[in-house]
Amino acid sequence: MKVGVVGAGLVGATAAYAMVLRDSCSELMLVDQDNDRARAEAQDIAHAAPISHGTRVGSGDYAALEGSKLVLIAAGANQKPGESRTELLDKNAEIFRQVIPQVAENAPGAVLLIATNPVDALTDLAVRLAPDHAVMGSGTVLDSARLRWLIAQHARVDATNVHAYVLGEHGDSEVIAWSSATVAGLPVADFMAARELPWTPEIRAGIESGTRDAAASIIGGKRATYYGIGAALARITERVLGDRRAVLTVSAPTPEYGVSLSLPRIVAAGGIQASVMPLLTKDEKAALERSAAVLRASVERLGL
Amino acid sequence: MKVGVVGAGLVGATAAYAMVLRDSCSELMLVDQDNDRARAEAQDIAHAAPISHGTRVGSGDYAALEGSKLVLIAAGANQKPGESRTELLDKNAEIFRQVIPQVAENAPGAVLLIATNPVDALTDLAVRLAPDHAVMGSGTVLDSARLRWLIAQHARVDATNVHAYVLGEHGDSEVIAWSSATVAGLPVADFMAARELPWTPEIRAGIESGTRDAAASIIGGKRATYYGIGAALARITERVLGDRRAVLTVSAPTPEYGVSLSLPRIVAAGGIQASVMPLLTKDEKAALERSAAVLRASVERLGL
Amino acid sequence: MKVGVVGAGLVGATAAYAMVLRDSCSELMLVDQDNDRARAEAQDIAHAAPISHGTRVGSGDYAALEGSKLVLIAAGANQKPGESRTELLDKNAEIFRQVIPQVAENAPGAVLLIATNPVDALTDLAVRLAPDHAVMGSGTVLDSARLRWLIAQHARVDATNVHAYVLGEHGDSEVIAWSSATVAGLPVADFMAARELPWTPEIRAGIESGTRDAAASIIGGKRATYYGIGAALARITERVLGDRRAVLTVSAPTPEYGVSLSLPRIVAAGGIQASVMPLLTKDEKAALERSAAVLRASVERLGL
Amino acid sequence: MKVGVVGAGLVGATAAYAMVLRDSCSELMLVDQDNDRARAEAQDIAHAAPISHGTRVGSGDYAALEGSKLVLIAAGANQKPGESRTELLDKNAEIFRQVIPQVAENAPGAVLLIATNPVDALTDLAVRLAPDHAVMGSGTVLDSARLRWLIAQHARVDATNVHAYVLGEHGDSEVIAWSSATVAGLPVADFMAARELPWTPEIRAGIESGTRDAAASIIGGKRATYYGIGAALARITERVLGDRRAVLTVSAPTPEYGVSLSLPRIVAAGGIQASVMPLLTKDEKAALERSAAVLRASVERLGL
Repeated sequence: MKVGVVGAGLVGATAAYAMVLRDSCSELMLVDQDNDRARAEAQDIAHAAPISHGTRVGSGDYAALEGSKLVLIAAGANQKPGESRTELLDKNAEIFRQVIPQVAENAPGAVLLIATNPVDALTDLAVRLAPDHAVMGSGTVLDSARLRWLIAQHARVDATNVHAYVLGEHGDSEVIAWSSATVAGLPVADFMAARELPWTPEIRAGIESGTRDAAASIIGGKRATYYGIGAALARITERVLGDRRAVLTVSAPTPEYGVSLSLPRIVAAGGIQASVMPLLTKDEKAALERSAAVLRASVERLGL
Repeated sequence: MKVGVVGAGLVGATAAYAMVLRDSCSELMLVDQDNDRARAEAQDIAHAAPISHGTRVGSGDYAALEGSKLVLIAAGANQKPGESRTELLDKNAEIFRQVIPQVAENAPGAVLLIATNPVDALTDLAVRLAPDHAVMGSGTVLDSARLRWLIAQHARVDATNVHAYVLGEHGDSEVIAWSSATVAGLPVADFMAARELPWTPEIRAGIESGTRDAAASIIGGKRATYYGIGAALARITERVLGDRRAVLTVSAPTPEYGVSLSLPRIVAAGGIQASVMPLLTKDEKAALERSAAVLRASVERLGL
Repeated sequence: MKVGVVGAGLVGATAAYAMVLRDSCSELMLVDQDNDRARAEAQDIAHAAPISHGTRVGSGDYAALEGSKLVLIAAGANQKPGESRTELLDKNAEIFRQVIPQVAENAPGAVLLIATNPVDALTDLAVRLAPDHAVMGSGTVLDSARLRWLIAQHARVDATNVHAYVLGEHGDSEVIAWSSATVAGLPVADFMAARELPWTPEIRAGIESGTRDAAASIIGGKRATYYGIGAALARITERVLGDRRAVLTVSAPTPEYGVSLSLPRIVAAGGIQASVMPLLTKDEKAALERSAAVLRASVERLGL
Repeated sequence: MKVGVVGAGLVGATAAYAMVLRDSCSELMLVDQDNDRARAEAQDIAHAAPISHGTRVGSGDYAALEGSKLVLIAAGANQKPGESRTELLDKNAEIFRQVIPQVAENAPGAVLLIATNPVDALTDLAVRLAPDHAVMGSGTVLDSARLRWLIAQHARVDATNVHAYVLGEHGDSEVIAWSSATVAGLPVADFMAARELPWTPEIRAGIESGTRDAAASIIGGKRATYYGIGAALARITERVLGDRRAVLTVSAPTPEYGVSLSLPRIVAAGGIQASVMPLLTKDEKAALERSAAVLRASVERLGL
């Protein structure tokens, strides 16, 4: 099955590389406004294909997206030091207004997976620009994976045995749904008590900041983050292509909040089949409402 | 890493085949009292190795187990039509009394993974016969996987998003821990309600019998069951070899019940690190107590 | 992508199991004249799916094959002790005359992969019975893998670095194309000389009989062979589904020999794209001609 | 099994990422003189681990390398535009003189895999600096993979069916061993003729330059190359850790040429077991001699 990647920067290229190494698809097409960059990335990635599973990797213009089952949108700028989130939104919205209609025209029927930040507002924008397409944003899929991993480290179990979701904005206002988080089927605090592991507000706060501020911490050391998100994008892609009906906290328009944000959603070949609202405490509900309010301000700014 | 398989019948051979196809280990040694059978199975399985990941597959006597990190014990007879569970236990206990001491002597340091039925009582026996070894039984690992899959089918989501455990005996008295079962983080009934899927006592009973009676149903059609258990045994083996600290419902001696039975347990390189008792309702606790009583009767029969 | 398996005996079921463990396809449908057997096999195999890659596994009648990209034909009897190859052919040809037209009708566009023995003559028969379908037999794919593995063992290198083909009949008259066999790019004898490893007529004969008589040796110990062929069938299936244009010694009608036999052939989504005749010595050519003559006698018997 | 990566630049980090996605090892330790960079890369890569196979990823100082079975050396500068190969060698040799002795001291028994360029001369230097260690350079492993892929594209077959080696220097003087190159067991020209595909000196020259100048072409579009080499380094690592005795064109001291260069070599747990000189034409031998002469000049410059 064919996947298109629009935007051959570090995130788009790393996601493509992860798809080649994981055998997520049989054909990959990279598109970038800088043709030379797309060609060079495709060539470098293609060299990994014979060592892996033989994915066919190429580059081209928008017309080359035809036949894609999913198109990953990673076009746009990264946040510059000193640049505000608002400035970044304005810049990338402008890019989306050029890019998305061309993708929509050339890849009819493809699911659009938005990775560019700020991902929630841009998902809302993409939905307007490609009304005939299924659209989802990568949202807090990576944040949820980070959260599980941090809990797993502390609980001293494999991360696949931790169940926990990050909801709302992919950003500072994101909400950790502690009340429904479990380890081996037990509420987190009960598990830690049973295993005689400490579970203090400080440890919990450390995991929260480790989830929320992971990107900032990585950017501090290497200026950008792309390996984790690349693997997460490959995984979302596999779930769509495999029609797996897997539950992932992707971002999508959410009528009760009037904006795109992340909730657990059932992801299949046609995009999102349904959303599953977790059981939340009053405080978590309020925090999710606040997160939605932050996002509504962004979306209003875009005039949507 | 090297794995030994003692007992080259359908379960042992299928598990070995699954390990070759899944790249669970780098070397496999098959041992059977029927040398010809072990040699022939090893040869047939070895033909799959170059097509897969190149596992080295051989056969030999007990001395060939040396250096194994894990030895799978699949020796013993299958239940014959008309044969009682008690007769099967007597027969396989006799076999264990010959086999286990020789395994223990030749594979010092190896984790022993018991697959022969009745698995719980034979795990207790193996613990006595190999006091210096870490021992676990495959228990309800496959039952838990079947349960999750049946719930997932009904919930119309991927099985990885279902969390549920089967506890107690691997057999008729096994206990489905419904009260802690979740789909996408929601209690099962809440998930079904949210998705407007029916969730009646009949559906629940259907899933219970689909879990409990799956083996009997398969045996009705093909006389034995080995594919599902083979994959489950490969997975347990990978968790041990990879020191994953994964939570699996393996069978092991449980002081509060005075017998080996299945509970969620943290499985790592050295065997079981800890057990995690789920939150159970009063009824579930009583059912687990009854299951333990059934097993204690078996163990007493063995004179342990 | 969907794969059908017709004939849920040990070979068909093992191939289906290998496909589930290797993630060869996303959906599997088992069909057998014994519905109970098909259902039981599908159920046992399905239990391995959640532990692996989530393949959907079911059973049904011929109509359930609709939408398959490839249908594996493993229907038919195995050779009984004392039964001649001719008797086996007659019996399985009769079965093919019933099965193949129904498969062809219900799975339009599917590639038919024949695994039943004698595979070459039955491939010829299937070609006649399904004239609108691409048809290939598993031929000597497993024999070639066995040959490479035996050479690799002797050369003390990984089997992926050995290149060698078995041609002609999948059976006693098969031809090992020694003259084009290489290890690490060197002719086999040169490689052995360079590594100071013995390479005598006896060793060569041992590898030949190890290739030719492997099935008989395995059958001697366990009455049937299915693990190696199951993995080989999964691999051929992957090459077709992935449109890989891989070179495999599958069996197919060969105009210059007037019969189906194995040659290196380029296998892709639509079936066989082309055949590649290796460079052969005069003796090898004569042996291949003799192998074709054996097969022509079989085919004439079928009245094709 | 544990792998160390020294030098967390784009090549080292991408190789580590590929190892996590491919499940090449169970534990990864990144070391860099810039601790913050190593920590940030490890963190970003670690986020991909729970989505993949659960590799444990960390960062630390040289002491953290203890217990590694293989240490990848990717420390050093990349070639700057306008900078000569000689200047690059001097700079990275200086770095190696600091780094290698500390690696050798802290990771006794580890195989050292050199990836820093110019890789051949630096392999020779590492051999001197770590006399008790098995040392190999990545050499032309990626060049051989590129060559096979380009031939495969032209032959319209899967790259696994092409057999061809690039020998000598990883650089401008590298030698393509056309005379022993095969497609599906046939000499390349014979295969093209059989398939009626053009095979002109121009096409051959195009493949040669596509192999030799691939890095330069990629660097032209994206300033550096790391995806292909990252996958190649993961593969070499797997072959060592899996004790596979696979044939790879790694670089190592070659007595008959008095310098480290690439030849097909059998790679196993302890490093290189043997080298396999392909059959070469007189012209190819002369070209390999010239390539060795280029390398000897580099090594003399280092005073080895």
